[in-house]
Amino acid sequence: MGSDNGVTHLYLLVLAWFLFALHANSVPVERSTHIIHMDESFMPKTFTSHQLWHSSIIDSLTSTNTASSDDRRWSPALAYSYENAAHGFSAVLSQQELETLKKFPGFVSAYSDKNVTLDTTHTPEFLSLNSATGLWPASNYGEDVIVGVIDTGVWPEGDSYKDDGMKAIPARWKGGCEAGQEFNSSLCNLKLIGAKYFNKGIIAAMPGVNISMNSARDTQGHGTHTSTTVAGNYVSDVSFYGYAKGTARGLAPRARVAMYKVIFDEGRYASDVLAGMDEAISDGVDVISISMGFDGVPLYEDPIAIASFAAMEKDVVVSSSAGNSGPSLGTLHNGIPWVLTVAAGTIDRSFAGTLTLGNGQTIVGWTMFPASAFVENLPLVYNKNYSACNSRQSLSKAPVNAIIVCEETGSLDSQIDLISAFNFRGAIFISNETELFELGGLSCPGVVINPKDAPAILNYSKIGDKAFASIKFQQTILGTKPAPAAAFYTSRGPSPSYPGILKPDVMAPGSLVLAAWIPRDATAQIGSNILLSSDYNMISGTSMSCPHASGVAALLKGAHPEWSAAAIRSAMMTTANPLDNTRNPIKDNGLNFEIASPLAMGAGQIDPNRALDPGLIYDATPQDYVDLLCTMNFTKNQILSITRSKSYGCSSPSSDLNYPSFIALYDMKTASYVQTFNRTVTNVGEGAATYKAMIAAPKGSQVVVSPEKLVFEKKYEKQSYTLTIKYTKDDEGNVSFGALVWVEENGKYTVRSPIAVSPLVTYE
Amino acid sequence: MGSDNGVTHLYLLVLAWFLFALHANSVPVERSTHIIHMDESFMPKTFTSHQLWHSSIIDSLTSTNTASSDDRRWSPALAYSYENAAHGFSAVLSQQELETLKKFPGFVSAYSDKNVTLDTTHTPEFLSLNSATGLWPASNYGEDVIVGVIDTGVWPEGDSYKDDGMKAIPARWKGGCEAGQEFNSSLCNLKLIGAKYFNKGIIAAMPGVNISMNSARDTQGHGTHTSTTVAGNYVSDVSFYGYAKGTARGLAPRARVAMYKVIFDEGRYASDVLAGMDEAISDGVDVISISMGFDGVPLYEDPIAIASFAAMEKDVVVSSSAGNSGPSLGTLHNGIPWVLTVAAGTIDRSFAGTLTLGNGQTIVGWTMFPASAFVENLPLVYNKNYSACNSRQSLSKAPVNAIIVCEETGSLDSQIDLISAFNFRGAIFISNETELFELGGLSCPGVVINPKDAPAILNYSKIGDKAFASIKFQQTILGTKPAPAAAFYTSRGPSPSYPGILKPDVMAPGSLVLAAWIPRDATAQIGSNILLSSDYNMISGTSMSCPHASGVAALLKGAHPEWSAAAIRSAMMTTANPLDNTRNPIKDNGLNFEIASPLAMGAGQIDPNRALDPGLIYDATPQDYVDLLCTMNFTKNQILSITRSKSYGCSSPSSDLNYPSFIALYDMKTASYVQTFNRTVTNVGEGAATYKAMIAAPKGSQVVVSPEKLVFEKKYEKQSYTLTIKYTKDDEGNVSFGALVWVEENGKYTVRSPIAVSPLVTYE
Repeated sequence: MGSDNGVTHLYLLVLAWFLFALHANSVPVERSTHIIHMDESFMPKTFTSHQLWHSSIIDSLTSTNTASSDDRRWSPALAYSYENAAHGFSAVLSQQELETLKKFPGFVSAYSDKNVTLDTTHTPEFLSLNSATGLWPASNYGEDVIVGVIDTGVWPEGDSYKDDGMKAIPARWKGGCEAGQEFNSSLCNLKLIGAKYFNKGIIAAMPGVNISMNSARDTQGHGTHTSTTVAGNYVSDVSFYGYAKGTARGLAPRARVAMYKVIFDEGRYASDVLAGMDEAISDGVDVISISMGFDGVPLYEDPIAIASFAAMEKDVVVSSSAGNSGPSLGTLHNGIPWVLTVAAGTIDRSFAGTLTLGNGQTIVGWTMFPASAFVENLPLVYNKNYSACNSRQSLSKAPVNAIIVCEETGSLDSQIDLISAFNFRGAIFISNETELFELGGLSCPGVVINPKDAPAILNYSKIGDKAFASIKFQQTILGTKPAPAAAFYTSRGPSPSYPGILKPDVMAPGSLVLAAWIPRDATAQIGSNILLSSDYNMISGTSMSCPHASGVAALLKGAHPEWSAAAIRSAMMTTANPLDNTRNPIKDNGLNFEIASPLAMGAGQIDPNRALDPGLIYDATPQDYVDLLCTMNFTKNQILSITRSKSYGCSSPSSDLNYPSFIALYDMKTASYVQTFNRTVTNVGEGAATYKAMIAAPKGSQVVVSPEKLVFEKKYEKQSYTLTIKYTKDDEGNVSFGALVWVEENGKYTVRSPIAVSPLVTYE
Repeated sequence: MGSDNGVTHLYLLVLAWFLFALHANSVPVERSTHIIHMDESFMPKTFTSHQLWHSSIIDSLTSTNTASSDDRRWSPALAYSYENAAHGFSAVLSQQELETLKKFPGFVSAYSDKNVTLDTTHTPEFLSLNSATGLWPASNYGEDVIVGVIDTGVWPEGDSYKDDGMKAIPARWKGGCEAGQEFNSSLCNLKLIGAKYFNKGIIAAMPGVNISMNSARDTQGHGTHTSTTVAGNYVSDVSFYGYAKGTARGLAPRARVAMYKVIFDEGRYASDVLAGMDEAISDGVDVISISMGFDGVPLYEDPIAIASFAAMEKDVVVSSSAGNSGPSLGTLHNGIPWVLTVAAGTIDRSFAGTLTLGNGQTIVGWTMFPASAFVENLPLVYNKNYSACNSRQSLSKAPVNAIIVCEETGSLDSQIDLISAFNFRGAIFISNETELFELGGLSCPGVVINPKDAPAILNYSKIGDKAFASIKFQQTILGTKPAPAAAFYTSRGPSPSYPGILKPDVMAPGSLVLAAWIPRDATAQIGSNILLSSDYNMISGTSMSCPHASGVAALLKGAHPEWSAAAIRSAMMTTANPLDNTRNPIKDNGLNFEIASPLAMGAGQIDPNRALDPGLIYDATPQDYVDLLCTMNFTKNQILSITRSKSYGCSSPSSDLNYPSFIALYDMKTASYVQTFNRTVTNVGEGAATYKAMIAAPKGSQVVVSPEKLVFEKKYEKQSYTLTIKYTKDDEGNVSFGALVWVEENGKYTVRSPIAVSPLVTYE
């Protein structure tokens, strides 16, 4: 992909990938793939394994079929047998066979296979990670932690996968390095400890399909980028065409990576995703990082929700991406109560070009032109006849051996394309379109200048023929303010799959993240014709923020191996920072730079060092999640598809999941509401402590917490409280928000939970 | 320079620089700059310094002048007083003042100031330098040696000038770091130990001129490149846009650099060159590296000849460039008997692009496209209607989103320019024009394919619309054969200033040499509009070969501090290699790849490790050079301009300079000749040794050596011999050549001297 298209818009290919999703129905078949959940307690004792049982079920369907052909479309076929992430299997079945199967003892549920939607290094510094104190040294940089990445594969030859400085693989590791096309099993090492691939779902959906890279090798770059963002080794002197120069490394630079490739050029299916997560759990990963999601599916048919329930039971943290469908409300995926859902924010870094006018004035603009362009002392041309830069005809009258000034017209992208095609020596774009600054890409040697700086340029240009200017490229500015901001594209809650839990949970850096890439792809463009490739790429998305959170979760797992997945999530949420680097509330780039709501950024930007020592924890058991599921109007079998075990009962259904955040929903029918939340916090500080509730009520709401003081006498002691909110609907459908902060008296801890009052929106 | 021109042809700007030389007469003035040589014995004892004497002379001229004005054009003015390189001064004088001055006691000679012509790292490996044995360890990598570089200045912030690993500056150093525009004196360090600049000659020639960079800072790149080629420190991960990746360092990586900037954007004058060399000698440099020369001047008006005589007297080795005016005979400059004159050769390195056709065939071609272009699986188009690639009209019919095949037309440069302007995605140029491979530069994403590989491409293209191909860029191939070859551009002997000494002396790597550059310049081009800058540049010329020889001379000086400049030159010449890496005689790229004559490459390619231990040495004293000068039909004062001292007599004029090479000249008048050469060799081997003469006579000549055996009983013993050559003119003016090799019996030494029979050509 991408080779025939312009790469200025490469990011669009990533963001809009789902638009091009291959359809299971593209080959007309009598049968199609289904994912079947079974109750394992029904397995006859004669079977020594689940797989034998599943095979026998399929065989029994086959025996009822009389047609004979080599074409698997003409007989039912088992794709995967799932043992960890789910109980059941996926199989290619006809509608009639499916109906037969539903009558089998132990049948729980079945649904059609579906397509997954995929959602990118100064960031460790931006997150205050350092070698002197805090989470990096406390966790040995994640040395004992194994992160399973469910993605498009790896490019194992990349420097970021070298295992220099890595010690022996933890003995508990049961995974392996699967050989395949252009992938020798010796390509794994002490850093990349596992690599497997899963495409039976694709083959089932498209019989006879030619898998163009039948191995864990990455043909898309996405998995190489996400996995090195989590745990890439140190690589010095890395840059993206001269921008963001420095040492690349993952958030958990000593953690181990195991890749489970479930996305192929030929398709991406739920059955394969489920198989990859199943295997990751079986292999013994500590954290699963999954930068993709299924849009518009209920929890009981969402393979990520299903597999991550099993992961949660084993205290495996599943960190997932919120999606790139913002800024509208209700656009989020992976809004699963038992996973960590990660939004994307900007980084305090900008890529600059410095314009110097002939009169000595300098103006710093934005550029990511991917080369060390030499634009010095060239004529500066500004002319009403062509400076709209929006027509081939008028531009053909402009001198190309010059720096052309392009006025603000509101269509920066098309101006850039035109100027690139016309081979101008340089260009100045006057624009305040900030989306480009988050997504990157500029194919002509130009600089984007804020309209407030335009008068200086236009006045100087009036001297006419003698006006000249220079532009310097490849400048990286750190510490830009304000940062972070919620990315315009980050998907927003409430979660369509369950709006009653505030999602996303946290925000992490996602815009213009530098990490490893595959050499067989274009990552930048010069002019209309020159595509460039590079070993590192700088791209944007929640796919890039998720592995930041996954890396921090891995570090926390390394520092606190005893913590549950819920505890790790709680630590990340209650210590998250709602303020930017100007000490003002984080803004939302998708909402006119207004203050970002928790529906955009969750509790705020993750703060790894504070998460190491959160003071209090909101924990949750598997049964707590089941109690929540029991309130969701799901059938028993729908619940069983997720929980896999009847040992969980629905005796105490409760929507009061012990979650470190609060969301109160309104619809347009009722005017005012009261909702009470019950919560229990565990003291994980060093000893006795007293906390006092500080409340910032959402605008138009009243919030009461009881008791207002929590007194702990020792570590691990639990205390409960209620939060009651009286709120009204907002006629314009606006979100209001506030927070509850438990502040330790005479101590260092503050434990913050966001509170959101949101319209009940569900986008499908 | 260069900012308004295409940079594919940047090399032309370097090669043809002299064509654009600024003229002293560009401002019409009554006075102009003259260089005056004086006999210092005439200095009245009342003057405590030469400068005071020189000033008084100028003052006495002034007092006879009645006009008054601030404009220095209206009064005589002293530019420089020279004390080391020459005795005398340069001054701005009217013709009448000059005539008055000629009557002063002690006047020796005077001539007008003139313009200098300027003539660029795997090369240490190519020259077999290594850390285990030989010249590098024997010389401590040149640690105690100071190299003065006469050039365009330095960019001191470059990594190659860092002094990591350098020890204290030798105590004898008297130089300094002169502050100036954008040049703080603290910019010098243990590597760059000196930096001075000289532009009074420019100011004198162009009164009121604005010196745009009035300091030792380099605005042209040339001096930064040459000085780092001599002695740049180790810098890892360097490349030229992905080509020639590796660690850059000079030939003498621990030697010290002192820069004497004598070339400015505003001009380059003999008076400034003389001042720079004068200062270098005074400061105490051990080696002078000068990659420039004066064309068409007699020795007594050539500031390099004059200054290098003084240098030679102090055993300072002067290493100079032969010029880039080849391949015609008699085009050489710096053919000065007491300097080392260096020709340029190619390197065993090529820059490749791999073309892969859709049928799987791969063809390796040449490319230096300066980016990681991504050209994969694009349509391959070949069509008689446009594949000549020589007309805008026909090319406008070709599809640009494709790889176009361009047939051989004999005008590769213009094809490249057209294809660049048309923004094709890729191009295949069928051509055997090898000059491009020596000079570099390719502004479109293309590959140059040898015509012998063309049929595979053209046959495959016949499949039509389905033909496709891919091209991989940025490949560096080492060990290419044959190498070295004499560069097509390297200037050829005989030396116009004295044809009786065979020049050049040796050849060193000069084609596509990677070394440091200035950031304020374009070094490559993409398409018709994108110029690129870089910290390292890869350029070609004798300007690049000279500093290779200078670096080796510095190493030899470090290993043998007691050797004279003549001894060091002799060691480099008699150990030079006349064979390439196929063990065949070195070929001449400027002469249809025929065997290179000594007039192209001197004794052959320098072989540093062998030069460390040459066995025998041809030494020469200052008086020996004077004896030669005495044969040249120069006046006493012309000789005195060079020698500066009357203590040298002309009592024993002799053209038998004890030189390690032989040239016999013929004109078109006489049919046959006999010439006898007298030579004396000094045994610098460890003890007793016997050498036998092995003669390869030039074609059509007879050579007799007497005695045929030289017996040495101890180290430093001298033995003399005669070589007599009977030769005839060649009616077609061809050069014939051979060699005398003294071979140690039962020993390791071979001491080789080239013999050339050449027409007496003088180009002016």
